[in-house]
Amino acid sequence: MATRISSFSLFLFILVSYTSGLLNPRSLKNLPRGNSESSYEYQTLYFKQPIDHFNFESNVTFSQRYLLNDAFWDKDNGGPIFFYCGNEGDITWFANNTGFVWDIAPEFKALVVFAEHRYYGNTLPFGAESYANLSTLGYLTSEQALADFVLLINDLKGKYGDVPVVAFGGSYGGMLSAWIRMKYPSVVVGSIAASAPIWQFPGLCDCGKANEIISSTMSQYSTNCYNNVLSSWDIINKTGTTSGGLSLLSTTFSLCQPLKDSLTLMSWLQDVWFNLAMMNYPYPANFMEPLPAWPLNVTCQKLSQTFTTEDDDIKLLQALSTAMQVYYNYSGQSSCLDLNKESSTDLGAKGWSYQYCTEMAMPMCSKGGDNDAFPKQQWTVNNYVKNCQDSFPGIQPRPYWIEKVYNGKNISAFSNIVFSNGDLDPWSAGVVLDNISDSLIAVIINDGAHHLDLREANPMDTDSVKAARNIHKDNINKWIGGYKKMAEAY
Amino acid sequence: MATRISSFSLFLFILVSYTSGLLNPRSLKNLPRGNSESSYEYQTLYFKQPIDHFNFESNVTFSQRYLLNDAFWDKDNGGPIFFYCGNEGDITWFANNTGFVWDIAPEFKALVVFAEHRYYGNTLPFGAESYANLSTLGYLTSEQALADFVLLINDLKGKYGDVPVVAFGGSYGGMLSAWIRMKYPSVVVGSIAASAPIWQFPGLCDCGKANEIISSTMSQYSTNCYNNVLSSWDIINKTGTTSGGLSLLSTTFSLCQPLKDSLTLMSWLQDVWFNLAMMNYPYPANFMEPLPAWPLNVTCQKLSQTFTTEDDDIKLLQALSTAMQVYYNYSGQSSCLDLNKESSTDLGAKGWSYQYCTEMAMPMCSKGGDNDAFPKQQWTVNNYVKNCQDSFPGIQPRPYWIEKVYNGKNISAFSNIVFSNGDLDPWSAGVVLDNISDSLIAVIINDGAHHLDLREANPMDTDSVKAARNIHKDNINKWIGGYKKMAEAY
Repeated sequence: MATRISSFSLFLFILVSYTSGLLNPRSLKNLPRGNSESSYEYQTLYFKQPIDHFNFESNVTFSQRYLLNDAFWDKDNGGPIFFYCGNEGDITWFANNTGFVWDIAPEFKALVVFAEHRYYGNTLPFGAESYANLSTLGYLTSEQALADFVLLINDLKGKYGDVPVVAFGGSYGGMLSAWIRMKYPSVVVGSIAASAPIWQFPGLCDCGKANEIISSTMSQYSTNCYNNVLSSWDIINKTGTTSGGLSLLSTTFSLCQPLKDSLTLMSWLQDVWFNLAMMNYPYPANFMEPLPAWPLNVTCQKLSQTFTTEDDDIKLLQALSTAMQVYYNYSGQSSCLDLNKESSTDLGAKGWSYQYCTEMAMPMCSKGGDNDAFPKQQWTVNNYVKNCQDSFPGIQPRPYWIEKVYNGKNISAFSNIVFSNGDLDPWSAGVVLDNISDSLIAVIINDGAHHLDLREANPMDTDSVKAARNIHKDNINKWIGGYKKMAEAY
Repeated sequence: MATRISSFSLFLFILVSYTSGLLNPRSLKNLPRGNSESSYEYQTLYFKQPIDHFNFESNVTFSQRYLLNDAFWDKDNGGPIFFYCGNEGDITWFANNTGFVWDIAPEFKALVVFAEHRYYGNTLPFGAESYANLSTLGYLTSEQALADFVLLINDLKGKYGDVPVVAFGGSYGGMLSAWIRMKYPSVVVGSIAASAPIWQFPGLCDCGKANEIISSTMSQYSTNCYNNVLSSWDIINKTGTTSGGLSLLSTTFSLCQPLKDSLTLMSWLQDVWFNLAMMNYPYPANFMEPLPAWPLNVTCQKLSQTFTTEDDDIKLLQALSTAMQVYYNYSGQSSCLDLNKESSTDLGAKGWSYQYCTEMAMPMCSKGGDNDAFPKQQWTVNNYVKNCQDSFPGIQPRPYWIEKVYNGKNISAFSNIVFSNGDLDPWSAGVVLDNISDSLIAVIINDGAHHLDLREANPMDTDSVKAARNIHKDNINKWIGGYKKMAEAY
């Protein structure tokens, strides 16, 4: 079995690595599908930004969207600003899925702001042409996004007074919230960086760790689940070598369109396992898909049978298909499985591909066999560069740039950041897991998935996530207190 | 008298402010003239840099020059790297005028590196075309320069091991050395930022303070000197209104070319007073010009007569002309005074003009009358922008950007920077004059001019500059010790 996986995986590796059409950078979040869970009230506002903060040749500007709520804000005593650093997607979705900020805003009498990241949602610097070519895309970088946030905060301080600003962010937004505190500490007094894999970069991480974490969770839920997932790749690959086999796969998985190659299905399945692990919350949620409580467990339980003989292969595939419905059809709304839905060509996904292919070179690999339940897939800088240059002809990826510009692992000189992480979250492979100093704090949420702590309070919340949120609040209080003390000293 | 100065000054103000040809941003240092004072040994090396660190579209690179000496370096025990952040000029000049680094390198067993700033000296990204237009100039920013230093240091660490790197810099180089520690603390353990006016920016400083400092020093040397300088502007202006008067000025000041307007002479004189104050060292030096010890005092003593009547005007001009020879003809090499020599069109000066007109908008003004000995000259953002757009058509100056990108006055979150300043230095108007924290330290050098502490040890050194250098060494020791302790902990 190991040999078969290995040879098949090499094939997969070659295909995945050298076929630009299959280039599939792991977005920290895929784009939202369906409705958001909660809905909060805010004004939708726009702020004029220069397209290029780092050059003085162009007078092109664009409108950055941001959401603002001042209902809780203590104007008289200079309540703080809670500033969410927008991710690679529509900011309204993040606003509606970051209930923690809304939950605590009244207690802190805070002004709430959610700022959209350039090139996502409604913040398209060149409108429909934003993704037209490398020239229009050239201003889509984390450095430009941080500078946008800095100017916006500066503008807000002009309007609301020199009040303390606390940065929040989850996932890529969490990375931005950590980085804005590092680079611009005059602008934010501290940052809650939830599930922020700032070290998921070449040379700083083990690219296989994320899939190990998923696999380990699967294994805890059901050893058979782990084994069946591990077996599934080989079976799908083998089945997909004939047209009859492809038809069988199409039927078994109730695909909306006939399958043309098994890799498409395998790629989708890997995404699903990854997403189930990210969204493995202790209660039903509708973050990326409507899902039950502990969706990875629920899915795994549907794959907990023992399949021993080769004749069982079709049964395993059927069980896998049934299990997958937990992900794509939990609410029973789908009559068939549309594999293309996930890898949509919407701007958000393309934006992240561009970011991945320039500076956000976040490696992701799997080793297969005893290590994890996934087909062996290498990630090498050379292949990364080649694939990216195929996808974006003329692009100049610099996979080691993020390490240099954001100080890699040597960040002890910075302060006032809480790095929170769920131990079930695959992205915890690239996060800060240990305290670095008194004010660079790592918080581990047991049984926590992707930035669970940023979600709104829920009766099913674990003690661990409640404790994490209390740590956040304690630190926010400390940062605000420190700011006010400093202000009084002047 | 006050009224006359005032009306004349308004005229001057209008001319200076609206005539792009007279745009004269105050360079932190004008470019070297003549030979350097000391000569140290180093290899001249080059490092390949991307032209644009903040965009991924271009594969253009250029060769950054740097000077390296490993004669003192303790290879076996990982001696530190002393890294000088190059200013707006030829790096060999800075290497030869920064004796302090060379003086202490043996004691610290340090590798010495002087890195040239892009667009200066031999580091011309597009060769002779570097200054061709706004597109070629577009990569001349402090952010790009810092990123150059970061990549170069990274390369050096690859070659010499993960040793502690201490940043040094004086003037603009001092600003860069402070900023590199702020933005990239993983790269340098600490910085000696000598005479670094990081706050000489709109909204952060009093633009008249620098000229006040010069005037106050003049006044201490000789009240008559102050009064005569104050009177001189009006006399020159008045004399220059007729062609006969211009001839008289040309003769009196032994000009190489006939004077076409009095403003040219006045502008040159202001530069000279500024430079004399910057170079007011306690011993003869040849930094920008060969000068005697305490050159501002020597010059002032030649203007210490009393001139009372209008008939004395010509005598005052003659005395001023004689005094000026201290500056331009101390070594007796000049047969005439070439006013164009200072405002040369060499690349260095043009580079600084571009930097001034984009982000390095360092305001400089004078108030005249009782405040300072200079003609009243306003500095306003509007005029700055207009003048810059006249000088560089199409440019988009952002005078408040530096405050935002480098955190303005709120830098207490950073660490390990010594800001040293001479109290006679006009640039001390824009520096950090008070300790900000235990590790952001201000050192004032009494009777010190522009980064006196970075110069090589001299028998005439004051106790104050010796003390400053000891503070530097203590801090460098502390930073290196901290780095080694941290390295051992891992």
